[in-house]
This record gives sequence, structure tokens and C-alpha cells, in this order.
Amino acid sequence: MQVNAYAAYQPKENLKEFKYDSKIPEGKEVEIKITHCGICHSDIHLIDNDWMISQYPLVPGHEIIGIVTKVGKDVIDLKPGIRVGVGWQSGACHECEWCTTSQENLCAKSVATCVGKYGGFADHIVTDSRFAFPIPEALDSENAAPLLCGGITVYSPLKNYQVKPSHKVGVIGIGGLGHLALQFARAMGCEVTAFSTSADKEAEAKSFGAHNFVNSKDEKQMQEMTGKLDFILSTVTAHLNWMDYVNVLRPNGKLIFVGASPGNIEIPPMALVLGQKIVGGSVIGGIAIIKEMLDFAARNRIKAKTELFKVADVNKAIEKVRNNTIRYRAVLEM
Amino acid sequence: MQVNAYAAYQPKENLKEFKYDSKIPEGKEVEIKITHCGICHSDIHLIDNDWMISQYPLVPGHEIIGIVTKVGKDVIDLKPGIRVGVGWQSGACHECEWCTTSQENLCAKSVATCVGKYGGFADHIVTDSRFAFPIPEALDSENAAPLLCGGITVYSPLKNYQVKPSHKVGVIGIGGLGHLALQFARAMGCEVTAFSTSADKEAEAKSFGAHNFVNSKDEKQMQEMTGKLDFILSTVTAHLNWMDYVNVLRPNGKLIFVGASPGNIEIPPMALVLGQKIVGGSVIGGIAIIKEMLDFAARNRIKAKTELFKVADVNKAIEKVRNNTIRYRAVLEM
Repeated sequence: MQVNAYAAYQPKENLKEFKYDSKIPEGKEVEIKITHCGICHSDIHLIDNDWMISQYPLVPGHEIIGIVTKVGKDVIDLKPGIRVGVGWQSGACHECEWCTTSQENLCAKSVATCVGKYGGFADHIVTDSRFAFPIPEALDSENAAPLLCGGITVYSPLKNYQVKPSHKVGVIGIGGLGHLALQFARAMGCEVTAFSTSADKEAEAKSFGAHNFVNSKDEKQMQEMTGKLDFILSTVTAHLNWMDYVNVLRPNGKLIFVGASPGNIEIPPMALVLGQKIVGGSVIGGIAIIKEMLDFAARNRIKAKTELFKVADVNKAIEKVRNNTIRYRAVLEM
Repeated sequence: MQVNAYAAYQPKENLKEFKYDSKIPEGKEVEIKITHCGICHSDIHLIDNDWMISQYPLVPGHEIIGIVTKVGKDVIDLKPGIRVGVGWQSGACHECEWCTTSQENLCAKSVATCVGKYGGFADHIVTDSRFAFPIPEALDSENAAPLLCGGITVYSPLKNYQVKPSHKVGVIGIGGLGHLALQFARAMGCEVTAFSTSADKEAEAKSFGAHNFVNSKDEKQMQEMTGKLDFILSTVTAHLNWMDYVNVLRPNGKLIFVGASPGNIEIPPMALVLGQKIVGGSVIGGIAIIKEMLDFAARNRIKAKTELFKVADVNKAIEKVRNNTIRYRAVLEM
């Protein structure tokens, strides 16, 4: 069938209409009629070829929600009519040590939904059913789309780095990822502190679940946080003085990155030795934890705060994402 | 009673004889007749006042083994005649959240054996019985003394960062700490790789349990290690290009520091995000894990390779520690 999509034809340019013929789903593939697709900062990086992996025409989009329309003969769980979501990853080998231990996100043969393939800024997609996840009824599509990438990106480290309900958790950057991290950490029972350079986000950060708000440009507020938190998640893509946040950690504390901040983390080893602190990273999540995250989000009414755009206004939406004026995630309606 | 000790009277100077009167052990204190005391690099840092915490006359020594000679009235487990060891830590509050969760090493009121107190380069010491650990019979005193600081320093991260028998473990620096780390990791069932700039240590590293030896000055050997190890312990006090070792880690890999390396760790966040790697620190260990380590060492015949010096030759021993020519731990015999 013919797919109506929007594509970048060259780096950094506006998207234009793009039509391509998709195949009939084979084997474990499904065809999905897309209803919504979130816009993630990674889409912008792909459009701009910042990571030198983009192929043009490039159809971005990896926070997809839609309805299954056709299934390949080997599909097990899905059938036409089921609402599903697709995130950053849409393929893996399913046989390596990572895939067989529910860590498909670490598979060396991982396939990305919109790298070398056409993504979700389109009315249809044919993709691997194993990475198409049924969306719980309690979640509405517009607010759930960003969970597929932004949601799992912040949920996974909270689980894998063993955040406990009794922990004091900080979130750096209250944007598309951060506003979801506040909700997840709050729903897990943690005491939650939002760190932001935008003092005007305090009220909203608290509405997302933050108990405390720290204006990170205010040195005094930062110093008062010394030795206070067990876990800090950095969702920003800016370079910060990371030692400031190592100092905010309590003994055994963890500073975990999910954002592609430029520059280096610069920390003296003794700042980690004394207090037994760690600095680490986390990247999306495997199949099982994505399903778990969706279930947890549904039960705890966690949803992205979105601005909805008609797909024809995709360039207007992208412009707002580039300007960081979206509150808090742009979603395209197909 | 009068204690015969060796003390630094000023930073960076040779030690000289020093006599002081010790009190009768009270409460939970014990008096120990010291037979052996290891020389740790931390002793040199204290002698030199590198950490600006030294008080003179300074009696170094925190890898103590000796025989209990007197006990205070509240001592529970120890009695005269029992052989015990004392390490870096000799006091804690026993009431805070860290003490009550077997992490006395993180107690804010931690007391160090030879900071603001007279340490183990002496014939006797009066110290808190809760930090005096019975030495299993299978361990001889000379080779066990370095376990009290060097041993726990490397055992604790292997346990706390969840190294598994199936893991591939690297040890950077084959000295006082590193040669013990090789033995512990091997005894835990791991595949063990030694990293050293001293190619002449290969045979001995293998005798301590290393399956593999990497000359870390050899770029080709280092590159061949890319993506090979689950866990790397850095025991060195030198500044290295730490990204070289982050690159040696497999997905989920951990680079853990126990040495006071100067300078900064400099790593781009994305090097941690992709592959979900962590960089962290570890500092000695609490009461329970020290006892566990001694038991594990006894069962697995883990012992420091030592050079024994009469206490009167303490300055000769210190000189060799300063020159890094000790193989692998200097121990004083009282």
C-alpha cells in the first residue's frame, strides 16, 4: 500500500510530504495505521544528521501509537484492531545474551525504528510485532505516545539502578523526559526533587509530582542540597558542572545519565570513592520492561503533558521542539 | 603502660622512636600486643600530610595483627589470648542509618586508627573491640595483616557491585591492593585479567590468579580488550586515560575506583549511556563484611605476598613503599 509520510530530504531542512510503497507484513511483522506520533529530541538529531547515521529521505518518528491493520503469519499476540505503540527500537536478534535476558536494548543487532527505515511521521508503518506493545485501555493515545521512548528512557534507570520507595530522587531538566520522570518517581513512592534552570516551571513540576523544586542557577539552593539525594537522573542535553550533582548525592548515591549531554563528565576519583558514589548511564529498555512500564503508567495515571499538532503542521511542531518551548511533548495527530 | 612506637614528628621526615603512656582499656576497648603491622600507601600519605589531616607526632599503621592482652568490662566477644586484626577504621557511632545497616565505613562519625590517634607501628594499642576482628587460624599473621586494609578495600567492591562468578574481571595495578584483588576475583570463580605497566609482573600476576595479563602501555593489547570485561577495579594512585578502560567494559560494565588517583575522570556521558556503563567508587568496608572477607580469605588461602621488616628498619621499609619496589606489601614485625 502507499504510505503518506513526512520526510527530511536533506539535513536540517523542513520536512516535506513523502510517499512510499510499503510491503505486506510478513512473518512476525504487523501493519499499523498510525494515529499519533510523539516528537523526541532524537528525531531532531536524526533530521540534522547530528549522529552521522541518517539516510535521506528520512521519515522521523519513534513514539508511535496506532491500530494494527494486518499481521504476518507468524505473529503470536497481535491481531487487527489492537491498539499498539512502537518506540525507538523495532528489531533485535532475539538470540544473544542480552536478548535472552530481557535486555534487547543492548543487542548489538538492535534495529532503530527510524534509522535506515521509515519512521512514524506517517499514516502507516510495517514493523516487527515483537516491538509493538499493546497499550492499556486506561491510557489515551495522545498522552501515551511519548511513553514509548521518553517514558521507557526514564522508567528503566529508576528500576535497574534499584531506586526504592524510601529514596530521595532528583530529576535534572523538566522537559519531555523529566516531566515523566517526576511522575514515575512520585508514583514509586519516592521523595522527588526537580532541578531546573527555568524557575517558572516550579508549579508545573510540583503538579507532576515533585515535592521540592531547586532553581539550579541559584548557588545557595544548590548548596543546600549537599548530601541530600540517593539518586539523580539527568535528562538534559546540556553540559553542566556534574560535580555539583555528585555533591548533592548521599553515600551510595547514583547520578545516572539518559540525555546526550555534550562535553565530558569531569570528576575526581576520590569524590566517588568517599561515599561510594556512582555515575552511570541508561539507554531505553527491553521488551519486558516496556510492557511493565506501560502497565505501571496505566495503573498510576502517568501521562505525558502534550501539545497536539496536525501532521500537516509538523514543521511548526519541530520548530517548537527546537526552541524548547513545548510543554512538554509535541505529538502529531495523523 | 608505656607503648614503644615509631612516629613521624614532622611531614615527610623519617620516623623516630616514640614512647607514650596508654590507658587501661575501658568499656568496649581492648589492649592488643601487636605482632605485625602492614605498611599501606595511606600511611605514607599521612606521614607526608598529603590529606591535611595529620597530627604529629604521628604513629602510622592500620594493618595490625596482634594478641588481645586486656579487655574492658563491656567487651563481648574478645578475651585475652585471642589473635585479632585492626584495619583503617577503629570507631563509628553504631547508631546511624549506615551503622545499623552494616555500612559502618560510611558513618559520618567514623574514627580512623591512626588519624588523631596513635596507630600500629608500635608494640601495643588500645582500641575499640568492635573493630578488632578475630583472625581465622588458617591465616598466618604476616600474610594476613594486609587483609585488614588492602584486603577489605578490594573485597568490598567485588561483593557490593555484584560481581558474579561468571563475570570477566579486570584489575588495574598489580601492587599491594591489586595482587589481593586478583586472588579474590579468582577465588570467586571469575575470569581475571591483570592490567599493569610493568611487563615483568606477568608471571607473578598469573601466580596470583590472573588468567590474562595486559601490558597497559601497549596500545594494541589495550585495543584487543575492547568490550571484553564486566567489571574493572582500579587500584592505582596514578592518573590514567580512564576512557581506555570504559572502552574495555562490556554492556552493563562497571569501572570501580578504590585508589586515590589524582586528576579527573573525564568521560562523555554518551560513553556511559550506550552500553549502560557505570563508573564508581568504594571505600573499605563495614564490620560484617570484614569478618566475611577474613573467612573467605582463610577458606580460599588468600594471602598477601609480603616483605617482612623488623620494626627498627621501618624507614627502610617505608623507602621501598615510596619507591614502589615492594613485592607486594611491606609488613613490620614488632
